[in-house]
Amino acid sequence: MKVLVLGGDGFCGWPTALHLSNIGHDVVIVDNLSRRKIDVELEVESLTPIAPMSTRLQAWKEVSGKTIEFRYLDVAQDYQELLDLLRDEKVEAVVHFAEQRAAPYSMKGARQKRYTVDNNLNATHNLLCAVVESGRDIHVVHLGTMGVYGYGTAGMKIPEGYLNVQVTTPEGKVVEQEILYPANPGSIYHLTKTQDALFFAYYNKNDGLRVTDLHQGIVWGTHTPETMRDERLINRFDYDGDYGTVLNRFLMQAAVGYPLTVHGTGGQTRAFIHIRDTVKCIELALTNPPKRGEKVKIFNQMTETHRVRELADLVAGLTGAKVSNLPNPRKEADENELHVENKCFIDLGLKPTTLQDGLMLEVTEIAKKYSQRCDRSRIPCVSYWTHSQQDAAEKGR
Amino acid sequence: MKVLVLGGDGFCGWPTALHLSNIGHDVVIVDNLSRRKIDVELEVESLTPIAPMSTRLQAWKEVSGKTIEFRYLDVAQDYQELLDLLRDEKVEAVVHFAEQRAAPYSMKGARQKRYTVDNNLNATHNLLCAVVESGRDIHVVHLGTMGVYGYGTAGMKIPEGYLNVQVTTPEGKVVEQEILYPANPGSIYHLTKTQDALFFAYYNKNDGLRVTDLHQGIVWGTHTPETMRDERLINRFDYDGDYGTVLNRFLMQAAVGYPLTVHGTGGQTRAFIHIRDTVKCIELALTNPPKRGEKVKIFNQMTETHRVRELADLVAGLTGAKVSNLPNPRKEADENELHVENKCFIDLGLKPTTLQDGLMLEVTEIAKKYSQRCDRSRIPCVSYWTHSQQDAAEKGR
Repeated sequence: MKVLVLGGDGFCGWPTALHLSNIGHDVVIVDNLSRRKIDVELEVESLTPIAPMSTRLQAWKEVSGKTIEFRYLDVAQDYQELLDLLRDEKVEAVVHFAEQRAAPYSMKGARQKRYTVDNNLNATHNLLCAVVESGRDIHVVHLGTMGVYGYGTAGMKIPEGYLNVQVTTPEGKVVEQEILYPANPGSIYHLTKTQDALFFAYYNKNDGLRVTDLHQGIVWGTHTPETMRDERLINRFDYDGDYGTVLNRFLMQAAVGYPLTVHGTGGQTRAFIHIRDTVKCIELALTNPPKRGEKVKIFNQMTETHRVRELADLVAGLTGAKVSNLPNPRKEADENELHVENKCFIDLGLKPTTLQDGLMLEVTEIAKKYSQRCDRSRIPCVSYWTHSQQDAAEKGR
Repeated sequence: MKVLVLGGDGFCGWPTALHLSNIGHDVVIVDNLSRRKIDVELEVESLTPIAPMSTRLQAWKEVSGKTIEFRYLDVAQDYQELLDLLRDEKVEAVVHFAEQRAAPYSMKGARQKRYTVDNNLNATHNLLCAVVESGRDIHVVHLGTMGVYGYGTAGMKIPEGYLNVQVTTPEGKVVEQEILYPANPGSIYHLTKTQDALFFAYYNKNDGLRVTDLHQGIVWGTHTPETMRDERLINRFDYDGDYGTVLNRFLMQAAVGYPLTVHGTGGQTRAFIHIRDTVKCIELALTNPPKRGEKVKIFNQMTETHRVRELADLVAGLTGAKVSNLPNPRKEADENELHVENKCFIDLGLKPTTLQDGLMLEVTEIAKKYSQRCDRSRIPCVSYWTHSQQDAAEKGR
């Protein structure tokens, strides 16, 4: 199948492109390299030494014999090029990762808030608009987030995208209705994903677009079978306060002897998935598209839930690291429950990689191996959710 | 009160600016004149001869003795100027009309879809972001649309913004929850307003912003007491297939002897409000802001509901015009019920202008008086909701 991977240079996009190429799809990567450029802005680098795109693709050709094409373009801006690509390449499916994906970065300041909104919403809309204009029956697979759900409803399992509700009319009649799960985003980044969901619902209703929206948990891990085949194929590993995700940060902190940074009580429960399962889920989504006329398919793309402090204790136990409790820069509850339905992918055959399976490999193969590349000054989280939190932190220094 | 009127050159913005100035507020109009520029693009003109902004403001000074300031800037782009304005002018409230507001225009083609999304979402987000950055406790009043609701729930009255729902957990426990009314937009334009609602909810939750969102019906009428004081103050009256709203189009069609254009069966029920009541509602919203910490206030800003064919019959009866049934370029149900709660404004003292009161004045003072300015070739609706509707229309010609 001819597949476009938008954002195919990023942390999820790159291993996805390799995996899809490996199983026989004809892959074209589209990327404006924004993730590398944000590294420049933030003065940070991936802990792992990622190769330039041309080197990556050359290495993939050498080890696999397969060619992945690369187009340098900005999906949020270069509409005509995107449309031409859909038509000229006879694209059959698009995997859309072309969004700014860090909640802390999206809260850093006005520039980053505005960039996240402008980039993410125009990227998604340009894609949908171009698919309609192309006249092609293209399946769009979008990387969303569990964060659209907020904290869920009354302890019940968060369903996959839709919620059945009952409305009582003034006359006392009870009417049952299925609605998109009510949005409750926790950052500007998460907000844009809830707005994306409205784009998908509309283009599905008006133009019959076939869309799968994947509500992904926090990704951990670095390697997939494909990225391990050559060091030039290595995936990025972010540990800084903006882009580093919680479990990867703990692993790297343990490796360099930095106390594990738990914000607040660490009672926040989060959903997790290993990067290996991410790429497998994308494969499953592509091979199980919605039928024509079917509503947007929404899958919860996660395999485990854990409290942040449990993860810290787990990593501390494996490595002997200490745990450090810090004020939370986010505006969120200190403690929350989270129960998530993930039946769709399990029914399609996903075999989850558990923390138990994958954690030690990460400690030895990534965190320890590249620990000399760590810049400790970039570990603290310094993007605050509100002015008053920022002011308090500055006084506290 | 120091009030910024964003989009203060438009059909609702201009009479609002005059009304707020008239009752003693200190008004600054911000506009990029996009509405006039879209007239250039569409090769249409307001039926009424609208004066340039500098002439309008000079005339207002002459008849009222009051000064309205004008800043030519693009809210969706000129973020720093907007932020400076909020701070330098010590702004206390902002009325936000700075969005592309025609559903048919938003469906015309890829360029117009993309412009509507880019302009409307960035304008709203820039405003909210700038209010937070300004550090000022500014009340934001936004012009939304009844169109965010879709067709309502099970014949019950559409509530003002929020809906109480019951969710049954797998254990059979029923949990009551208040949610934003589930979005069901009918065009790209309406879609952007449902996405705006998520912006408001988020900035209200995270930063405590005080926001009033007005879900307005279809506006009819032209004159307000202020715009009638001098012909140079006259408001715009659109009759073309993209920007003309249904009742104003019927009035003008009757005046020039064009059969009244009813699409489909005309069984679509819509909510209406006179422009005089629009400006009064904005006044009421400004003087009754949400308290600090209060959630987003949502008012339904409409006074009557009617089926389109009833309006056509009413205008035909008044004027002797004929009715012509045409294929519907929109993707919507031919017939729908609509019951709307509008208690909030009525409780605040709004005395609605009814069709009975205002219709004949429009026929004689506007539609007939300026009928020689009508370009009949611009009357048909030629923006189709889908490619298949467009193809069918082109074959039918």
